[in-house]
Amino acid sequence: MTYEKKSAVVLCSGGLDSATVMAMAKNQGYDIYSLSFRYGQRHHIELESADRVSRHFGALQHLVLTIELDKIGGSALTAAIDVPKGRTQAALSVGIPITYVPARNTIFLSYALAWAEVLGAADIFIGVNALDYSGYPDCRPEYIASFEAMANLATKAGVEGTTRIKIHAPLLNMTKAEIIRTGAALGVDYSMTHSCYDPLPDGSPCMQCDSCMLRKKGFDEAGIKDAM
Amino acid sequence: MTYEKKSAVVLCSGGLDSATVMAMAKNQGYDIYSLSFRYGQRHHIELESADRVSRHFGALQHLVLTIELDKIGGSALTAAIDVPKGRTQAALSVGIPITYVPARNTIFLSYALAWAEVLGAADIFIGVNALDYSGYPDCRPEYIASFEAMANLATKAGVEGTTRIKIHAPLLNMTKAEIIRTGAALGVDYSMTHSCYDPLPDGSPCMQCDSCMLRKKGFDEAGIKDAM
Repeated sequence: MTYEKKSAVVLCSGGLDSATVMAMAKNQGYDIYSLSFRYGQRHHIELESADRVSRHFGALQHLVLTIELDKIGGSALTAAIDVPKGRTQAALSVGIPITYVPARNTIFLSYALAWAEVLGAADIFIGVNALDYSGYPDCRPEYIASFEAMANLATKAGVEGTTRIKIHAPLLNMTKAEIIRTGAALGVDYSMTHSCYDPLPDGSPCMQCDSCMLRKKGFDEAGIKDAM
Repeated sequence: MTYEKKSAVVLCSGGLDSATVMAMAKNQGYDIYSLSFRYGQRHHIELESADRVSRHFGALQHLVLTIELDKIGGSALTAAIDVPKGRTQAALSVGIPITYVPARNTIFLSYALAWAEVLGAADIFIGVNALDYSGYPDCRPEYIASFEAMANLATKAGVEGTTRIKIHAPLLNMTKAEIIRTGAALGVDYSMTHSCYDPLPDGSPCMQCDSCMLRKKGFDEAGIKDAM
């Protein structure tokens, strides 16, 4: 089959990383198909941000899929509790934050791959970052390269050898400040985005979780005011 | 972290292949964690079979996850129609059956990987077969090997280098008759299983789809009567 070169599936969490990635994909001339997931407990605010970001960049479609990661557990982000209980604790060890969700990026990218194949898109964009999230196994360059190799064997493109599927992770080696400067130069309005792991009842960020702290540090270092 | 060597996640569709694989895993001494998916249109009968099979082999848990493959489309198995409409047709080409579901095994294995990590299991079993399903990209040995390599980079096991995750696909190079003989020797009661892609309203197999035909041919060649 012939892939349309200009369509891309962009994973969109509604956070500043994925907003920046979508701006980069748009800037490279891709038609955007935005993909978000409803899982765990933070759906509402995150998905509102994801929808704002997708509309801002003129996504041709914003697909939101519900995935039941809460039934699998193993993370503070998908369990209804601060610290996993029982067996799930065995899956947590020193060095990897309890906000790590087992195989999450693999599941996200797998759905993106399925959608890309149906759309005839050869390009998938994901906003993973190896510097700020060095504790996450699935945010490392070698993981992304390996997923891409697998993707080219998993799909018709692989069997037919017509097109190479490419996983774009342009933020991999950027600091948060570099990401923010890049996005700002492309006109990203970061007030659309949402980063907090554990927002207050009114939706405002807690300013105390890892994600809020990384965001603040990034804006401070970039010398840009966060309009959030 | 230390993985418990004797737990395995077994993907269970309720069909004869996955029932045979579960029998093989059980025979190798693994505690079984059975994983099924609710998707597309054939849920009901398939999941009843999957539950019978899981209970028969004493699975410690049978987890059924709902996945919205129908929102992605691209296959006769997940769309509500016989032949995909509109854009999805671009994803279908000569040589690959319209029952192929884009990236399905990748999505299935990704969830299995997530659950294995939470359980502390290093072993995942899947009943893919390269002979009868040569048209499916994600039923080939090189695909399985590539997923396994990726899995070991995606997870804590990969970062910590403590345990190698293994994707077991023991049916890869077996004919349907060999699969049935193997299962029969391990005491599989194939009347528990379900194969039809498009069952009649009363739940009985159509005997005309690819899956029914392959099943009949397998039993004929194995010289075993199908009690289905």
